[in-house]
Amino acid sequence: MAESLLDVAGIGNAVVDVIAREQDKFLDDNGLTKGTMTLIDLAEAEALYAKMGPAIECSGGSAANTLAGLASLGGTAAFVGKVRDDDLGGIFRHDIRAVGVEYDTPAATDGPPTARCLVLVTPDAQRTMQTYLGACAELSPGDIDPKLIKRAKVTYLEGYLWDPPEAKKAFKKAAGIAHEAGNKVALNLSDPLCVDRHRTEFRELIGNHVDILFANETEIVSLCEVGDFNAALQEIRGLCDVAVLTRSDKGSVVITDSDIHILDAEAVDKVVDTTGAGDLYAAGFLFGLTRGCDIPTCGRLGGKAAAAIIGQFGARSEKPLADLLDF
Amino acid sequence: MAESLLDVAGIGNAVVDVIAREQDKFLDDNGLTKGTMTLIDLAEAEALYAKMGPAIECSGGSAANTLAGLASLGGTAAFVGKVRDDDLGGIFRHDIRAVGVEYDTPAATDGPPTARCLVLVTPDAQRTMQTYLGACAELSPGDIDPKLIKRAKVTYLEGYLWDPPEAKKAFKKAAGIAHEAGNKVALNLSDPLCVDRHRTEFRELIGNHVDILFANETEIVSLCEVGDFNAALQEIRGLCDVAVLTRSDKGSVVITDSDIHILDAEAVDKVVDTTGAGDLYAAGFLFGLTRGCDIPTCGRLGGKAAAAIIGQFGARSEKPLADLLDF
Repeated sequence: MAESLLDVAGIGNAVVDVIAREQDKFLDDNGLTKGTMTLIDLAEAEALYAKMGPAIECSGGSAANTLAGLASLGGTAAFVGKVRDDDLGGIFRHDIRAVGVEYDTPAATDGPPTARCLVLVTPDAQRTMQTYLGACAELSPGDIDPKLIKRAKVTYLEGYLWDPPEAKKAFKKAAGIAHEAGNKVALNLSDPLCVDRHRTEFRELIGNHVDILFANETEIVSLCEVGDFNAALQEIRGLCDVAVLTRSDKGSVVITDSDIHILDAEAVDKVVDTTGAGDLYAAGFLFGLTRGCDIPTCGRLGGKAAAAIIGQFGARSEKPLADLLDF
Repeated sequence: MAESLLDVAGIGNAVVDVIAREQDKFLDDNGLTKGTMTLIDLAEAEALYAKMGPAIECSGGSAANTLAGLASLGGTAAFVGKVRDDDLGGIFRHDIRAVGVEYDTPAATDGPPTARCLVLVTPDAQRTMQTYLGACAELSPGDIDPKLIKRAKVTYLEGYLWDPPEAKKAFKKAAGIAHEAGNKVALNLSDPLCVDRHRTEFRELIGNHVDILFANETEIVSLCEVGDFNAALQEIRGLCDVAVLTRSDKGSVVITDSDIHILDAEAVDKVVDTTGAGDLYAAGFLFGLTRGCDIPTCGRLGGKAAAAIIGQFGARSEKPLADLLDF
């Protein structure tokens, strides 16, 4: 088992989501920008939490959600990310293993507590996130096991990992190992504010080290510093092998060296909470890709997984996603 | 504020629910009896959790759910119960305060961790619970503040509190204070296995110290050691001022000194998870009672609150229950 091939090895922030329904006024009163992820410190996290309504806790983290989705579809995955040896760390470890993802990064035994993301879901089903990174900042290159990375067809990195400085080194080490082994490297830009924080580095990274790029419309427009989606599209062509650009209810656009595929969004009965839509799109796409599906099929699988997750609360599916497969 | 009247002061186990969907086979494989609550130790809790699928965490506890429901309806409530100063304890304290319930019992600073209840929800929407009581066993008579109990029109006690020995003394102390102040004492039998464990003591308690009894069909039949609901009904008449007997989709029966009211169940679109049905029935009933409503109205409010909670996952309402009020 230890030497078996993996579809995807993902590296990301190990985060427990704390989800509450709030009105728009709550965002205004606390100076929060709807739809974005902001980094906060422990004192800010505690102050905001004290103002929030009753919440539920469930495991999250962008790359971790993608891997959980991939495993739920029937793929094989491993996660690398740092928790503390506290209650929330135990919850994170349980949940990702319970869905079948390998996860063996040792927990930190001192230092800051496990990361949490305060997720505020407004009546329009949009989510606004405030993240305290805590133990995630302790992830270092030493946590990257070359054997694990070599086993994976794709090494998947979340852009959020660019925030904790040591994690960035881990991220680059993993990308190097993957390419030396002839495997692919994928990056998800994660969030427009995250792109703002790291634009220059992301551009260099995408041009030189990334084979498959995932981004939504706002993120790609921010990365390219252009006025609209079409302008970003022209800019990004040729920068990496595959660019997967998601556009919410407008569907997605996938660019390869030779083609552009324009894929409509899947129908959704009722949008409950958009948390995890991008993460699950990546899960579906990578599931198809690692099975050798053509690009339109990969995109449709991504769209289906995203549609499934926004019909429920939270970013980890309540039901096995393999039920979505019909190809 | 500190001296204001309260509708209900509740004393119970302070528990965080860990909820996972499982198939019936999982119950069979682990020797669990559907629909019941079993007490387990920490090692058993860890072993079962390791086998469970991905879960979500949310605050629970029988009496605590009732108070959260009462506050959500617009009532005033205070909770007494013990957590540890750990992550789960922080979650419990946040959630009950966030819905407007006073909660000032100090957290234990050593000893066992905060209680958790592993809730397994099967496809038929039934819940099966395994509880590790942890810090709840640290609740003692010293945690009962006479001033708080005197402020409450009703002091509400959950039967589960009979399990940790010191908590039982706290429970009796509170009942004594309430009666001395001319207030009412309510007891919820909680669970048929809990009745089995404490039948003799419960009978003595109900006969001598309880004004309002809440029980479901299985619990009251077990308490009276009779063959069916009607036989239990005859037995329980006259034992306490008000006996509120719930019967799931058969509705409820409320017995007073002079009358018997037979109330139909409220319509439910789709039963998702029955966790908290009994707790929320008590919330609605006590909300009506403390507002001087007549018994049928109290029962209908209970039925409505129960119907609302079984249409969602978890025992704390996602939406303000005050929307249910139309009287």
